[in-house]
Amino acid sequence: MGANAPTIEDGFVVWIEGLPSSGKTTLSRAVADRLRAAGRKVEILDGDEVRQMFSPELGFSRKDREIHARRVSYVARMLARNGVAVLVAMITPYETSRQAARAGVGSRFFEVWLRCPLEVCQSRDAKGLYERSRTGGVAKLTGVDDPFEEPLNPDLVVDTARLDVDASTRRLLDFLAERKLAAPLAAA
Amino acid sequence: MGANAPTIEDGFVVWIEGLPSSGKTTLSRAVADRLRAAGRKVEILDGDEVRQMFSPELGFSRKDREIHARRVSYVARMLARNGVAVLVAMITPYETSRQAARAGVGSRFFEVWLRCPLEVCQSRDAKGLYERSRTGGVAKLTGVDDPFEEPLNPDLVVDTARLDVDASTRRLLDFLAERKLAAPLAAA
Repeated sequence: MGANAPTIEDGFVVWIEGLPSSGKTTLSRAVADRLRAAGRKVEILDGDEVRQMFSPELGFSRKDREIHARRVSYVARMLARNGVAVLVAMITPYETSRQAARAGVGSRFFEVWLRCPLEVCQSRDAKGLYERSRTGGVAKLTGVDDPFEEPLNPDLVVDTARLDVDASTRRLLDFLAERKLAAPLAAA
Repeated sequence: MGANAPTIEDGFVVWIEGLPSSGKTTLSRAVADRLRAAGRKVEILDGDEVRQMFSPELGFSRKDREIHARRVSYVARMLARNGVAVLVAMITPYETSRQAARAGVGSRFFEVWLRCPLEVCQSRDAKGLYERSRTGGVAKLTGVDDPFEEPLNPDLVVDTARLDVDASTRRLLDFLAERKLAAPLAAA
């Protein structure tokens, strides 16, 4: 790294939560691109992929979702303590899961809630889940027939119904820069 | 890091396999200490702890052991590609699991077989597993009533019945130094 590159070596975990189609995957990828361009090591732990690898046997009950969240936070913590910027993109509907993840990771854990009304998420329906839920193809879809508990203690709220991807990305990167976890963005 | 510190930044996975009480945990801890002292980032993925976190629902059938090995190799790979020296300590009784782990991790994967006769392992019985097997408290103990397939393609074989911990540690560190993955040991 050159002398002007960010000198931040410590990892962290940004835990991005919200309804299906609230923008978690899109935002995590956009932020990852920017962090990598700034020389950071980055891993995205995205709900679907990680679930397929670690928890294919688990369903979507409260208990199973919580077990899965604990597994993800365990991996996130291991990566972060080795200097990786970890972006978790996971619905995380239960407050207890968020608290357990925070407790497991420690001080460098940041909970980011993508606040987006259900109707907006339904109109986007990035993965066709809401449509499949209407036709009976998905049981226990968060926001429809499974709860999403309003986050009690998010470190950052991003209104992804109002902000587009670029603005949301900037919001999160500004947040990290304020905490000296990422280099400040150059003026646009 | 000072100018004389090892400049090796890339991670790798050393997958240490062998019968219960062949010395996997002991060796991985001793090697980890030396690598950390040389400034490396190190994680140990030890069979029991990792199994409790990722696969408490899995048993010890061939299928379950293979699923678990795939999970561990997935985490190991993620850590290694972020510069971490990963030491896996896991019985890994099936050749297919070893091959899957190697294929999953890629070129920087090194399979180390701790070759130790069953009688020697039984006499050590570090965790009391062999004793519990005799009294019916453990089913499917590798080496007793569950197979350990002889490794077909280990990158290194360490005879832990002949070599003590210090000598085994030196053997593995020499192996890594030859591959430029660790700094050469100072003359003893």
